[in-house]
Amino acid sequence: MTRALRPRPAASDTLDLAGNDYLGLARHPEVTDAASGAARRWGAGATGSRLVSGSTALHAELEGELAAFCGAEAALVLSSGYAANLAAVTALAPAGTLLVSDTSNHASLIDGCRLARGTTEVVAHADPDAVRKALAARQGPAVGVFDAVFSVDGDAAPLAALAAACREHGAGILVDDAHGLGVLGEGGRGSAHAAGLAGAPDTVVTVTLSKSLGSQGGAVLGPAAVIDHLVNTARTFIFDTGLAPAAAGAALAALRLLRAEPDRAARVRRTARTLYEALTAAGFQAARPDAAVVSVRAPSAQEAADWAARCREQGLAVGCFRPPSVPDGISRLRLTARADLTPADLDRALSVLTRTAPPAAR
Amino acid sequence: MTRALRPRPAASDTLDLAGNDYLGLARHPEVTDAASGAARRWGAGATGSRLVSGSTALHAELEGELAAFCGAEAALVLSSGYAANLAAVTALAPAGTLLVSDTSNHASLIDGCRLARGTTEVVAHADPDAVRKALAARQGPAVGVFDAVFSVDGDAAPLAALAAACREHGAGILVDDAHGLGVLGEGGRGSAHAAGLAGAPDTVVTVTLSKSLGSQGGAVLGPAAVIDHLVNTARTFIFDTGLAPAAAGAALAALRLLRAEPDRAARVRRTARTLYEALTAAGFQAARPDAAVVSVRAPSAQEAADWAARCREQGLAVGCFRPPSVPDGISRLRLTARADLTPADLDRALSVLTRTAPPAAR
Ligand SMILES: Cc1ncc(COP(=O)(O)O)c(C=O)c1O
Ligand SMILES: Cc1ncc(COP(=O)(O)O)c(C=O)c1O
Repeated sequence: MTRALRPRPAASDTLDLAGNDYLGLARHPEVTDAASGAARRWGAGATGSRLVSGSTALHAELEGELAAFCGAEAALVLSSGYAANLAAVTALAPAGTLLVSDTSNHASLIDGCRLARGTTEVVAHADPDAVRKALAARQGPAVGVFDAVFSVDGDAAPLAALAAACREHGAGILVDDAHGLGVLGEGGRGSAHAAGLAGAPDTVVTVTLSKSLGSQGGAVLGPAAVIDHLVNTARTFIFDTGLAPAAAGAALAALRLLRAEPDRAARVRRTARTLYEALTAAGFQAARPDAAVVSVRAPSAQEAADWAARCREQGLAVGCFRPPSVPDGISRLRLTARADLTPADLDRALSVLTRTAPPAAR
Repeated sequence: MTRALRPRPAASDTLDLAGNDYLGLARHPEVTDAASGAARRWGAGATGSRLVSGSTALHAELEGELAAFCGAEAALVLSSGYAANLAAVTALAPAGTLLVSDTSNHASLIDGCRLARGTTEVVAHADPDAVRKALAARQGPAVGVFDAVFSVDGDAAPLAALAAACREHGAGILVDDAHGLGVLGEGGRGSAHAAGLAGAPDTVVTVTLSKSLGSQGGAVLGPAAVIDHLVNTARTFIFDTGLAPAAAGAALAALRLLRAEPDRAARVRRTARTLYEALTAAGFQAARPDAAVVSVRAPSAQEAADWAARCREQGLAVGCFRPPSVPDGISRLRLTARADLTPADLDRALSVLTRTAPPAAR
């Protein structure tokens, strides 16, 4: 089954439950104003790598506020969450280091493990004992690498227990909180904050600016010494043009909105729970959401694709995940419970999903 | 010697010869207006990966115009030039493929080779015979991987001869034209166009939107079948949020300016030549520029760093490249001859460089 791009128009009546704009900030006027203003003030591009001409005071401001918000000592902004993960994993794992990596980790963490000079052991999903076992067997430095919230089902990792397993064996902890920032933790401070790991000297967190913050880019958060080390060694930082000012400005505005309106994070979690309950009541097999995403099982890859296509025809955009993007082979629709969805939006979504479902979905 | 970030202010009197904004378009009002307008019209972020919610009509428009301008059948836009290179190299080199990679290639091409399932043979810089030898020895599919213009010295690769070597042995050709687009070829159509490779069924070209086009992002240009293959397999495309609309809009506006004012490309080449001649006449050891960059030798890494720092104090921003960023161990200042530099700017640059030079630089 080949995949093809379907460019969307600027304005449409489609109800979007496909994107990762969890807080509905990508189109918030304060955020788009900030993007627009930053492009005018700083230029359309950063003009060079961050170490040459691509660091503006705007980047520094964003880094300072992100670190403070998440409770980290320092932060470094990169051009994407993908680049942030490649940078963090490779910088933390020079030759001789063992990376203990959850089998469900995101592609960017996996590619980071493959690029790193250290070796990688893949362990069972969300399994502190598997982490313990891998660490007990090794000699030398080690780092556990975990997605805090898994992108397909939106289930949260048992972060505190995973971190405890790492600490028992003196291993560092790298947490990808792409789907947790803005959604989990006090006021959306993220999964690491919620697990009591924020600011810990043995913990590094990566986030993306492209989901809850409605923009583009990524960041690594951690001890200042780790951030310095990244500045001096991480190839996707050193040899990449800095994040465009518009994206940095938009992410900063979104972060300030989140700080000023901390209920947004709770709202998206409530909306996800409501959607899950309605889907379950309607007989669908939905996964209980820990964050902003609700996934619904489809009987087969083909039926998932057809179901998503029928939804789209009826004005509802949903994500469709099927092999090989889902390692367990189970095809699903993936629904995003944006914080700005109304009860009417949820009713409409449920009605379209029910009307278009393949018979075996319930 | 550790490197530290120096955020720059929005407005300053510093003369910038450090960035890669070769055509001076990053701050062109039509380009920043386009960035601003796109953020307002489409939102601050793409909201999802290109295959889910992150493809807008703006992305499609940019892809169409980029492909047409460069003479390729199709194009695919990614979130950075780095991501475009990772995507292109890995997609072209499944297991069993030999990648023949120039030893001076950019970090992103090298990382692409390391991520690819195929094997890599590194060959001497700009050496068609070395390519021939590597290809003659192998069995199975192969691809030659070349930077068209090297980022440090700005020297152009002998692209036509390298391509001929690949073709003699039935190997594909992958050209990174990050520094050639907008500078080389008819009206800035790039190195592959100049070498007669544009639109060839065995050639794939990557470009960045972050240098001549003054924005952020990257693209892969090539046969439609290759682009389809990337859409279906390239991890840095599939698992990465789409390029922010502001960056796509800015790059499109810059491309249109370049098309409407084709002299910009010739102008930056002329400016580079003038700067080189003036530096040589003043006794510096400068590399004869093929594109927009002029590099000047410094006696040592420390003296290069000190020289660059003295320039900065006197209001001239220059790049400083030293080991390990330069594999040959020679430290240099790197000067960018932007198309919008005036004769007075060039005089000022020369005067600062002369005044601040370490004695052994001449
Ligand atoms: C878990 C996870 N990590 C990292 C990323 C990469 O972030 P970005 O899209 O900003 O490159 C994503 C999604 O795209 C993700 O889902
Ligand atoms: C030769 C070359 N290729 C690729 C890139 C990566 O492009 P980007 O900065 O847009 O990620 C760069 C510079 O950054 C480069 O110099």
